[in-house]
Amino acid sequence: MDINVRETFLKISKKLTNGLLLGQKLMTMDLVIGIDIGGTKTKIGLVDREGNCLIKKNFRTREYPDLNAYLDQAKGVVDSLLGELDVEANILGCGIGAPNASSKKGTIENAANLLWKGSTPILERFREKMPMPMRIMNDASAAALGEMLFGNGRNMTDFIIVTLGTGFGAGIVANGQLIDGYDGFAGELGHIDMTIGDGRMTGLGVPGGLEAYVSATGLKRTIMFMQSKYMDDSRFRDISYNGLHGEEITKAAEEGDPIALKAFDFTAKIMAQALANFTAFTQPEAFILMGGLMQSGKWLTDPLKVYFEEFLLDVYKGKVKIMTSGMPGKDAAICGAAALIWENHR
Amino acid sequence: MDINVRETFLKISKKLTNGLLLGQKLMTMDLVIGIDIGGTKTKIGLVDREGNCLIKKNFRTREYPDLNAYLDQAKGVVDSLLGELDVEANILGCGIGAPNASSKKGTIENAANLLWKGSTPILERFREKMPMPMRIMNDASAAALGEMLFGNGRNMTDFIIVTLGTGFGAGIVANGQLIDGYDGFAGELGHIDMTIGDGRMTGLGVPGGLEAYVSATGLKRTIMFMQSKYMDDSRFRDISYNGLHGEEITKAAEEGDPIALKAFDFTAKIMAQALANFTAFTQPEAFILMGGLMQSGKWLTDPLKVYFEEFLLDVYKGKVKIMTSGMPGKDAAICGAAALIWENHR
Repeated sequence: MDINVRETFLKISKKLTNGLLLGQKLMTMDLVIGIDIGGTKTKIGLVDREGNCLIKKNFRTREYPDLNAYLDQAKGVVDSLLGELDVEANILGCGIGAPNASSKKGTIENAANLLWKGSTPILERFREKMPMPMRIMNDASAAALGEMLFGNGRNMTDFIIVTLGTGFGAGIVANGQLIDGYDGFAGELGHIDMTIGDGRMTGLGVPGGLEAYVSATGLKRTIMFMQSKYMDDSRFRDISYNGLHGEEITKAAEEGDPIALKAFDFTAKIMAQALANFTAFTQPEAFILMGGLMQSGKWLTDPLKVYFEEFLLDVYKGKVKIMTSGMPGKDAAICGAAALIWENHR
Repeated sequence: MDINVRETFLKISKKLTNGLLLGQKLMTMDLVIGIDIGGTKTKIGLVDREGNCLIKKNFRTREYPDLNAYLDQAKGVVDSLLGELDVEANILGCGIGAPNASSKKGTIENAANLLWKGSTPILERFREKMPMPMRIMNDASAAALGEMLFGNGRNMTDFIIVTLGTGFGAGIVANGQLIDGYDGFAGELGHIDMTIGDGRMTGLGVPGGLEAYVSATGLKRTIMFMQSKYMDDSRFRDISYNGLHGEEITKAAEEGDPIALKAFDFTAKIMAQALANFTAFTQPEAFILMGGLMQSGKWLTDPLKVYFEEFLLDVYKGKVKIMTSGMPGKDAAICGAAALIWENHR
């Protein structure tokens, strides 16, 4: 028994003793802590062997610009989750998903949406606060692992998950394994150039970068572009960029707003081209789509599927599925992070 | 065994065979048959454990439009190679590299440059003629396996080989494994669209497809394009497209021909963008370049390296090598094919 596990064990024994005295928490359950570090929110949950998130809490990442204060806050949330749990937890470890995380180095590097700048040795610092088996991975790669263990990727050896939120993320599974890359930064597909040096800039300054078009933010930018290109009347003529929310675009499409419909078609077409290109790379059996933009539903996916088949090389046509996440929606990120540890307990 | 030792060994063994044993073969050696099926030539050789091609022969693929006649011819060449060999061969199996081959299905499908159309069950047919352990793979993937076993990929777990010939091929190694794809067609990167639906057509009708720009053929097309775009005087003003050979473009660059220099710069820039995009996919440690276009040497690779670093995301800058093949040039395709069998004997 290593020291980390022993400490957890002792702590749990103590709780168990207390619980027995009060007639509570008689059952012990293997659980994993899943932490999803997002630009806006940090989500922490306790995840069982089947990928169910039993209990979870969020806090705002940006309220803790100091890393040490952030770690204390995270540890506090973990402790309170353990306290609130109805069963006694045997914690197997902690998995962390974060943007721009290197699984091999245990760092977060130059994340555009986080306040900690440069290279942050997040894994080492977390281990100081919570000594236990711990792994970190790019959030999209963690989500791919989650799908592989608990979701729609369970029976597939080759698939790609795409997260469509503020940005465009990807997690690649090939030969039944997650593709990490030479030092853990594989799958940064949001910043590939789709236009040979001409086009919208991404947050990382890549001209023509994919996520400048295909993401929740990209769709908003396209609403602006379509108002420049066409003269159609539209509800968006009265809404500023900063006043514009994603749900409104879906609602407008449902009402037949021509600018919204053109924006979805444009987004779907570029996304289809990107997915067709990715297919030529690892030939996945499926793309599994998730993230905020997927709330647009058919307005994005219907034209996407049509363009995608059109753009695929003949050798791939009819062979590549486009599907949505098989993970319970809101917990996918937490469960993906937890999958980093569960992967080693199967 | 290094090459000198092997040559000495072969010389001695030949002397023994001729002089002392009157035609009997003294030694037995484990060997693999490597077959590279190309649009123009089929190359067949016998390859030892270290990736040395001991003996080889070519024939013209197109002279055998009938598959059965082709298989008989290939078997005849194998038999004659075995007969001419100075040592007794213990054949472990036969590896085949071919365009548009599916490793999983054992077929060649709709290859643009081969006369057998539709889906050809080449592996099954070869096995009927030569019953032995046999594998087939896309030629670029086979070349990647060759680099992994015998060449510059020996100490790398993540690299991509790029073949620049008539077309643009790629073989992807990640996590120390070749990436096959769901049914064996991964790495068809020559046909990804670099221009969102606008640009030159590839042989498979993909507008803006990479190999329409980055390949020996692509460079020729760019020589035409540069003559349309600029008015510079050039030796190419007197040469037709069909009369133009790749070596002449290199020679012209050496002489400072402005059209040749512009064509190399343009090709290098598009190739650099493609390789930067691929880096975001599997984050290789290196790209290993091979094929006819690489005879252009520094005229392509010097500007390529500069543009490549410029286009890479910050997180990848300075981490990805661009190198040439570590395989003895002309035998790389045969040795790559043989690697399919040698892989299982290590």
